[in-house]
Amino acid sequence: MTGGPAVVRHIVRADSALVEELSKAGAATVHEAAWRTGLLAPNLRPIYPGARVAGTAVTVLCPAGDNLMIHLAIELCRPGDVLVVALASECTDGLVGELIATSLRAHGVRGVVVDAGVRDVAELRRMDFPVWSRAVSAQGTTKRAAGWVNVPVVCGGQLVQPGAVVVADDDGVVCVPAELAPEVAKRCRARVEREHAMRERLVGGELSADINDLRAVARELGVEYVDGSGPDD
Amino acid sequence: MTGGPAVVRHIVRADSALVEELSKAGAATVHEAAWRTGLLAPNLRPIYPGARVAGTAVTVLCPAGDNLMIHLAIELCRPGDVLVVALASECTDGLVGELIATSLRAHGVRGVVVDAGVRDVAELRRMDFPVWSRAVSAQGTTKRAAGWVNVPVVCGGQLVQPGAVVVADDDGVVCVPAELAPEVAKRCRARVEREHAMRERLVGGELSADINDLRAVARELGVEYVDGSGPDD
Amino acid sequence: MTGGPAVVRHIVRADSALVEELSKAGAATVHEAAWRTGLLAPNLRPIYPGARVAGTAVTVLCPAGDNLMIHLAIELCRPGDVLVVALASECTDGLVGELIATSLRAHGVRGVVVDAGVRDVAELRRMDFPVWSRAVSAQGTTKRAAGWVNVPVVCGGQLVQPGAVVVADDDGVVCVPAELAPEVAKRCRARVEREHAMRERLVGGELSADINDLRAVARELGVEYVDGSGPDD
Amino acid sequence: MTGGPAVVRHIVRADSALVEELSKAGAATVHEAAWRTGLLAPNLRPIYPGARVAGTAVTVLCPAGDNLMIHLAIELCRPGDVLVVALASECTDGLVGELIATSLRAHGVRGVVVDAGVRDVAELRRMDFPVWSRAVSAQGTTKRAAGWVNVPVVCGGQLVQPGAVVVADDDGVVCVPAELAPEVAKRCRARVEREHAMRERLVGGELSADINDLRAVARELGVEYVDGSGPDD
Amino acid sequence: MTGGPAVVRHIVRADSALVEELSKAGAATVHEAAWRTGLLAPNLRPIYPGARVAGTAVTVLCPAGDNLMIHLAIELCRPGDVLVVALASECTDGLVGELIATSLRAHGVRGVVVDAGVRDVAELRRMDFPVWSRAVSAQGTTKRAAGWVNVPVVCGGQLVQPGAVVVADDDGVVCVPAELAPEVAKRCRARVEREHAMRERLVGGELSADINDLRAVARELGVEYVDGSGPDD
Amino acid sequence: MTGGPAVVRHIVRADSALVEELSKAGAATVHEAAWRTGLLAPNLRPIYPGARVAGTAVTVLCPAGDNLMIHLAIELCRPGDVLVVALASECTDGLVGELIATSLRAHGVRGVVVDAGVRDVAELRRMDFPVWSRAVSAQGTTKRAAGWVNVPVVCGGQLVQPGAVVVADDDGVVCVPAELAPEVAKRCRARVEREHAMRERLVGGELSADINDLRAVARELGVEYVDGSGPDD
Repeated sequence: MTGGPAVVRHIVRADSALVEELSKAGAATVHEAAWRTGLLAPNLRPIYPGARVAGTAVTVLCPAGDNLMIHLAIELCRPGDVLVVALASECTDGLVGELIATSLRAHGVRGVVVDAGVRDVAELRRMDFPVWSRAVSAQGTTKRAAGWVNVPVVCGGQLVQPGAVVVADDDGVVCVPAELAPEVAKRCRARVEREHAMRERLVGGELSADINDLRAVARELGVEYVDGSGPDD
Repeated sequence: MTGGPAVVRHIVRADSALVEELSKAGAATVHEAAWRTGLLAPNLRPIYPGARVAGTAVTVLCPAGDNLMIHLAIELCRPGDVLVVALASECTDGLVGELIATSLRAHGVRGVVVDAGVRDVAELRRMDFPVWSRAVSAQGTTKRAAGWVNVPVVCGGQLVQPGAVVVADDDGVVCVPAELAPEVAKRCRARVEREHAMRERLVGGELSADINDLRAVARELGVEYVDGSGPDD
Repeated sequence: MTGGPAVVRHIVRADSALVEELSKAGAATVHEAAWRTGLLAPNLRPIYPGARVAGTAVTVLCPAGDNLMIHLAIELCRPGDVLVVALASECTDGLVGELIATSLRAHGVRGVVVDAGVRDVAELRRMDFPVWSRAVSAQGTTKRAAGWVNVPVVCGGQLVQPGAVVVADDDGVVCVPAELAPEVAKRCRARVEREHAMRERLVGGELSADINDLRAVARELGVEYVDGSGPDD
Repeated sequence: MTGGPAVVRHIVRADSALVEELSKAGAATVHEAAWRTGLLAPNLRPIYPGARVAGTAVTVLCPAGDNLMIHLAIELCRPGDVLVVALASECTDGLVGELIATSLRAHGVRGVVVDAGVRDVAELRRMDFPVWSRAVSAQGTTKRAAGWVNVPVVCGGQLVQPGAVVVADDDGVVCVPAELAPEVAKRCRARVEREHAMRERLVGGELSADINDLRAVARELGVEYVDGSGPDD
Repeated sequence: MTGGPAVVRHIVRADSALVEELSKAGAATVHEAAWRTGLLAPNLRPIYPGARVAGTAVTVLCPAGDNLMIHLAIELCRPGDVLVVALASECTDGLVGELIATSLRAHGVRGVVVDAGVRDVAELRRMDFPVWSRAVSAQGTTKRAAGWVNVPVVCGGQLVQPGAVVVADDDGVVCVPAELAPEVAKRCRARVEREHAMRERLVGGELSADINDLRAVARELGVEYVDGSGPDD
Repeated sequence: MTGGPAVVRHIVRADSALVEELSKAGAATVHEAAWRTGLLAPNLRPIYPGARVAGTAVTVLCPAGDNLMIHLAIELCRPGDVLVVALASECTDGLVGELIATSLRAHGVRGVVVDAGVRDVAELRRMDFPVWSRAVSAQGTTKRAAGWVNVPVVCGGQLVQPGAVVVADDDGVVCVPAELAPEVAKRCRARVEREHAMRERLVGGELSADINDLRAVARELGVEYVDGSGPDD
């Protein structure tokens, strides 16, 4: 945090090759690979099914009911960015709409994550401009309150650093600090392979209880097997 | 309010030409034009994407868990109406379903806004009968409790007068009192033009921060620009 | 309840012919026929529109943040089952994902109801494997906490017995104890007929207020009819 | 509603004798006497137990995150008023605190109802200045956004007219339009007498089921009495 | 469940000596001793601090907005009972107030747990009649809808059997089926002793990490100890 | 963030004199002085009125339903610390109770902020050990899941750095990074003086609208003054 309200002009962005790699893995796998951290709260939902985006975070912190700082952030965005909008307190107003999306797209921004409301969702769907938000709301906002651009913010209950990798899809939004991205990418690759092997075995009817010896875990925890009243199979 | 439970037979409806005009503007624009008033709470969502309706309000106030008054309201509906159902207290039960929708359609009603639950949503989608509700719920209701028809009600946290204009789409539901509709329609036209001009400029890469001189606003509010640790672009 | 943590191996399942019959009626009708009982809370939503399933319940009770017991339940599932996962306390973590769904499908399970989160929803949609959940969340879980399989559980605020009939569609999830299924099925048939007759009359413009003599009910409750200020029609 | 943002200077207040009478009855009885209308949502809670106030409403409508209009409302308050603050959209920020309360008290205001947050609650308790709010929150607000004073507002899901009677206590907040206050007061007196008589009988062990013949109601609704497995008493 | 709406007259109650024993242990300890089951949802809160009660459950299931079945349940209550009121769907209306409490007390009932609202809380506090509820609300209800008395119900997300032990205090409400009460009571005694010994050691400055060897657990889970940037102590 | 699960042994704590100074100002004033940042979400409430604490943060991040990391954190606490417990995902389980509080007190910890549930609240009140939590819940937890101690965490929607100043009272919890504490303390002093002067004037009947020239602000925003239908005063 910088003390008083501020706009930070230059940020260090995560490597774009890593962004692409994490993008392919998807939010759920990235979250697992990142030691189960970084997942934004599940009330942040995409405005249409199949929305999918990855990029580097430009962060904004707005007071409830005002989107001035979003307008100031646009010129700091670069192609490949995702705008991440945090709120100082709980708010469902429509801080982002079609006009802002149009401007963001003109500057190469791939999508928006906003811990408040979004409006003009039919137009955004037509534009294929993905937004993850906690509400759809036409509620208008003012442009008169101070905030921050490109400082660490809390969005959806998670810390998002400017320049961090953001991966968002139907499963939600996950954020990985730039400095951890290389290791997380490596762990993603390993995880995808393990899951592929596991999937094959499960399709064939094997049980995860056998593969991972989970009945032993249960036994140790005191779980008992009892017969019940049903028929033998 | 009329004192005790009552059904009001004859109401003054907003002008149908104004309804059509506001309908074209859409909920978000109408809300902005109406001095940012009249937007129902964002937890009232359409049951399918792309739902869109406008009409004049026939209002109903039901106690939690009972839809008797909806049944009594149907005969007071006229072609072009939208039924707006308010609840005396918080409720998610399915007060409206396919049978009521069938009857409403037979009397020319264009859609329903209900501050509770709706059921039979697959059938309603097939019928292309739009409903905005706070929940989808099959929970059945009784038909045994007194309420009101065609009095001012509070639905989604907004006052809805009988005969008011209701505009509902993917962005939510907005309500405009009949007597304000002419001015709101005029303001809508102006707004649509302004937004059109703005859109053109934003597509071309101009910044709202420049167009609206927002950096000056920020400066006045004490927002500082700092360089940050990233590279110059 | 069995006392300490336990897995019950053999359960008595509802008759599959009754399952199919209730399936055709749909969740809303089954709930009405079951004396308006058994409907799970409306925050349990399908992960895609049009999802529809019916089957016999295999029940699981997990502590918040752990899905060990789901893994142990899979081998107890039989073709035609629906897995019903209850939580010991409020939780939105993604207890179920594509790997578990793959394994469940390999054992004939038709779908899942989980009073927590689900992940990999794009893959589940592609697999056409329906899940009803209170959240979509990629949040990972541990496999280290004791719970129960095939005991009576509370899911979505309703008691679900192992072997009970589960009917789930766009309107939500309803559960009918095996021993009540025959009577509920009979009542469903009667209800469907009554609704069919009613629908015909409503399409023709008749009013439920006339058909069911609801104005008399209203009068008895003290509802008054007043003229209002609008024009005569 | 007046169209654009406005402050209405002169309002018609309910009769102060009626205010005192309704005050004695308490919120629950007034709500019942008012045909079960006018009760604000139960998430509006007093900041300390035993808080109790009645007065005439001065109404304010603020956009989320801004309390400018509260400051403008103070000079319009008269001794015996209760300030009722509505929000244009969902908000928990602390719009009211000790300084505003100090100023309100200096102008004779008896308490505040605010559909957002309140702060300085320890000081307010010491001042014995009652506030009903949906949150306690120190979150600061701006003083830069237009709104309304003394127009009809929706607070806690209920319409509140300027000058209406507000009765608030541990059970919540109820609002009665000035023109209905005489009849509601009369109905209150009748209700208090009936309840007094009922209380006497219940203390003596009589049953409401007998007094109100509720077993007959149940029978008509198809409720069956069955013996159960317990011992005869 | 009995099929259609019903009142069950005679139930088997848990042993009163066990009730007293569990009462002394308190809700948190009973819940732990009962294998961490039976705790009602934490949104059920006592209406005043220090409320504390234990007894045998008389259960009621009401439709939203109606309390007819509570009135019918009173005559089935016996001294030492606690009334447990479940709702068929989400509801915050004030189903229980001072008059019902007066009648319940006249029949020996010790308190109420209601998965909806309660009113007249100032009077209930004066009567020292404890109620646990999800809301305080003066919202009135009808007495016209069918339900159930003394069947298994779901209250606060937990199954409550008629006759079960209910223990409620500042920590919430826990329910133990009559047949498990003896074993739970035994486990409570053991737990209280263990906790007493543990408390002594913790007061003396010992660490649970040492006593329970939790650093080894952490190590096994891959938790690393790192030095950090602070000074050595 | 450190990558995988970790316990950080040594942290830099804010200066204790600054802690005391901020403590005297209280949460609301500190939040204002800190440019309106750092206020944790208002659903974190004290377990008893009048609770008040300030200290330096020892931070913990637990997965839902598990408190292993709290046990590991205790030995890293120093007199004057406040334990701040964040959760990886939404959870209301009782992660903290009387035994943990006893141990924390034995090591000089002044209080706890936990973004989940707390139990044994009657005992905690007797101990005068203050806790701010989002729920009171006896729900037991496991001690088997990896997490973090003394890394930056998000609690109540705000970033909390290890060693930061935590100020908590009836108005909520506010957190100030150690490096900003000196400036925030200075700004607190100025603010307290300004508020003192303001209070004097308001007690005397002056209006904030006059003192801060707010009618001019309103005029600029287009707020109109209209007469209304009431009598002149």
